[in-house]
Amino acid sequence: MTTTSTTAPIRNGIDTAQVYGTLDVLKAQPAAARMEFRVRNRWIDGTHSRSTIQGFWGAGAEDDSRTEPFVVDASEPPLLFGHNEAPNPAEYLLHALAGCMTLTIVNVAAARKVELYEVSSTLVGVLDARGATGLDPSYRNGFERIEVAFSLRGNASPEKLEEIVDRAKARSVVYDMVTNGVPVAVTAELS
Amino acid sequence: MTTTSTTAPIRNGIDTAQVYGTLDVLKAQPAAARMEFRVRNRWIDGTHSRSTIQGFWGAGAEDDSRTEPFVVDASEPPLLFGHNEAPNPAEYLLHALAGCMTLTIVNVAAARKVELYEVSSTLVGVLDARGATGLDPSYRNGFERIEVAFSLRGNASPEKLEEIVDRAKARSVVYDMVTNGVPVAVTAELS
Repeated sequence: MTTTSTTAPIRNGIDTAQVYGTLDVLKAQPAAARMEFRVRNRWIDGTHSRSTIQGFWGAGAEDDSRTEPFVVDASEPPLLFGHNEAPNPAEYLLHALAGCMTLTIVNVAAARKVELYEVSSTLVGVLDARGATGLDPSYRNGFERIEVAFSLRGNASPEKLEEIVDRAKARSVVYDMVTNGVPVAVTAELS
Repeated sequence: MTTTSTTAPIRNGIDTAQVYGTLDVLKAQPAAARMEFRVRNRWIDGTHSRSTIQGFWGAGAEDDSRTEPFVVDASEPPLLFGHNEAPNPAEYLLHALAGCMTLTIVNVAAARKVELYEVSSTLVGVLDARGATGLDPSYRNGFERIEVAFSLRGNASPEKLEEIVDRAKARSVVYDMVTNGVPVAVTAELS
């Protein structure tokens, strides 16, 4: 995960020369910073649906680097009226949070010349189903709270590793969305 | 997706008798409503990480219905320093929202005796990367907004289908979390 070249160091699997080049582009051309991500979803049966994920807009152009779409399903376990066809949506939200915080930690560490040996995490979300079922409106539908426990090992002091985790919290796209919320506009074509 | 039996109708793939039985259990034993979902994630390299999803707590017991864990990866496209190993975390957040709103629509329709023929959706999230890169703190890290466009077809009037979508917005676990946010506590073991 390191290279002997000092001109284009790849650290933690991140090409830091590319990172700095991208930052220069964004400084020179702020319009390139606009990104648009998309998911198409289709109901299959019961609690089971399937998302197709491929193109997105970024750096001033439609990205065509994905030659095949990603296909990811969601469903529920039998307790929640599904058949375990796939993880459930609340678990995918935890996965999104884990993946984003992890890659942000790795990016921050690469920029700070810290080599990481391990980043692992356990995420737990707790809810009371009386909310989403409508039985008791004093409970919210979603998680009351999410607990994220990281384990990090790297060639830096615990203090420096802690700074990296703190910086990742301040920079993670999904951590921002999950902690602060996002305005969602829903429209429907009905027939 | 329908059955000729009127005693235990399966509608839209949802066993409505099971749904009503579960509601009765939750009314009689509120402690059974506590649910805890979990994801374990491990960094692989660069922006690439992998989540393992299997057990959860619900209905007063540890669920053991999943004999094998679900394994889902997250990464980034080359533009964002990855190698397209998997969808990115922001796309997974959209997938979580799509999957949850869709299954909530299907559940609500089943409870209201509406047979659905199609539920499909397109989700778009827009962000300015000057936020997450730290280049301009006036932009947030995450999506400024998310647009969800549903297409629903079923054996009910457009007005009734619209009521179902509205009710699903009011009941969806992930819609609540994405629109309102969730407190996230992060701890780290560092070495």
